[in-house]
Amino acid sequence: MDLWFTEKQTPSLAISCLVRSTLHRERTKYQDLAVLDTVEYGRMLVLDGIIMTTEKDEFFYHEMITHVPLHAHPRPEQVLVVGGGDGGTVREVLKHPTVSRVVLAEIDEGVINAARKYFPSLAQGLSDPRVEIEITDAILYVREHPGEFDVVIVDSTDPVGPGVGLFTKEFYQDVFKALKDGGLMVAQTESPLNNKELVQKINRTLQEVFPLVRLYMGPVPTYPGGLWSYTLGSKGPDPVAVPDERFLALETKYYTPDVHRAALALPPFVREWLG
Amino acid sequence: MDLWFTEKQTPSLAISCLVRSTLHRERTKYQDLAVLDTVEYGRMLVLDGIIMTTEKDEFFYHEMITHVPLHAHPRPEQVLVVGGGDGGTVREVLKHPTVSRVVLAEIDEGVINAARKYFPSLAQGLSDPRVEIEITDAILYVREHPGEFDVVIVDSTDPVGPGVGLFTKEFYQDVFKALKDGGLMVAQTESPLNNKELVQKINRTLQEVFPLVRLYMGPVPTYPGGLWSYTLGSKGPDPVAVPDERFLALETKYYTPDVHRAALALPPFVREWLG
Repeated sequence: MDLWFTEKQTPSLAISCLVRSTLHRERTKYQDLAVLDTVEYGRMLVLDGIIMTTEKDEFFYHEMITHVPLHAHPRPEQVLVVGGGDGGTVREVLKHPTVSRVVLAEIDEGVINAARKYFPSLAQGLSDPRVEIEITDAILYVREHPGEFDVVIVDSTDPVGPGVGLFTKEFYQDVFKALKDGGLMVAQTESPLNNKELVQKINRTLQEVFPLVRLYMGPVPTYPGGLWSYTLGSKGPDPVAVPDERFLALETKYYTPDVHRAALALPPFVREWLG
Repeated sequence: MDLWFTEKQTPSLAISCLVRSTLHRERTKYQDLAVLDTVEYGRMLVLDGIIMTTEKDEFFYHEMITHVPLHAHPRPEQVLVVGGGDGGTVREVLKHPTVSRVVLAEIDEGVINAARKYFPSLAQGLSDPRVEIEITDAILYVREHPGEFDVVIVDSTDPVGPGVGLFTKEFYQDVFKALKDGGLMVAQTESPLNNKELVQKINRTLQEVFPLVRLYMGPVPTYPGGLWSYTLGSKGPDPVAVPDERFLALETKYYTPDVHRAALALPPFVREWLG
């Protein structure tokens, strides 16, 4: 018997992966959580039927959402990761030696537990002494911690279910306040080809809150269209103007200084509608 | 009724697109040809069940397979396109004012006819007076035209069916001979994530034939993994060393000089196995 998992990535586009076995399935307090062992992408974390990450392609996403903002900031010390319970983003943040404290504000403890058990290569950083795990609604957490962070990384689900409040102007305003002077935030902001209206909307909303907004892109094979956008809102530092000597010699699979610069050099098809 | 077209991109990975209607279906002399009207990607050309190109995402592929080699060459005049019967690559080649002649060597006239009828935005260049269309086996054509071309672009199907002979050392040797001194070739060479053994193999084979070989990458949303590789074999010109002043101000949707440089700056996950 061939068992296929299918995600409808948009109402008219689907991806299907051949599944060896279902390693875990539960209804957490917030969502349907599954860990699948797929032939193509290895272990796969699926929340509410949507692929969050896989062993084989997770590095694209976690490296790009982390190292672009952390290199943009001249000296990131306090970092907040919103969502990101799988631990992949925290793992990347910890590669920056200036970072003294990483707070992971994840609403669903079930994701963290599943990651620890089934994705040790992602969750490895969660036990680091610099990491504080807060099982909480990040919307409340951000509001209650003004002026505390150098970088906030919004590693959220899509704007449906528990993730919806993380795509609002009110939330971005609270993030602005949670940042120190010279701080910046980044969020995963969906597909520039298959969901461009949403990318546009997030960009406009962030521009109402932050003096500097930058979109950048990178591949994520298991996300719709395989090409993903990230949007950065900054109180000052510009990821386009990172001096050469600031780039760290990181152990990465995708991110490099060349990739950093290239990801921010937007092609015409994006520039024409980004405004 | 919802009608979905599904392509098994690998034995364990599939993409499905919701179909409004089948605009055309025929068994040509060489392959099963379909033109589908899809909701997500507009019109889609499907050969032997494999997505060749779509209205919405074709620009990624056609711009990248064309403008990287044509900028690498200091003065491309004679260009051969192998395969590419949809016309998209020829359309891009014609944007280079130094080009005086483009030969399209396509084995299957059915592809050209379908493109002319259903993909006018791709086929537009096929009527240009600089274009010669040869309905022929490109393997023979290349062998019979030594020393004739500045650039050869192998815009082939996958290495199955009619495309299989276009991935052999013998073919690359004939292309080498068909190139003038200082000429170069490029071929589409599959997914670096989902088919890396094939990418490696092509790279090694080209290195046995050409003194300089370069891999570059770019997104193609409807191809496996959404990230595609192209491999360039050169008798001399290096795409990494294109002087700034050579880049043309082209009307493109994806390709820019920044994209050119970025596509050639390979990330660690490719460098580690490319050798």
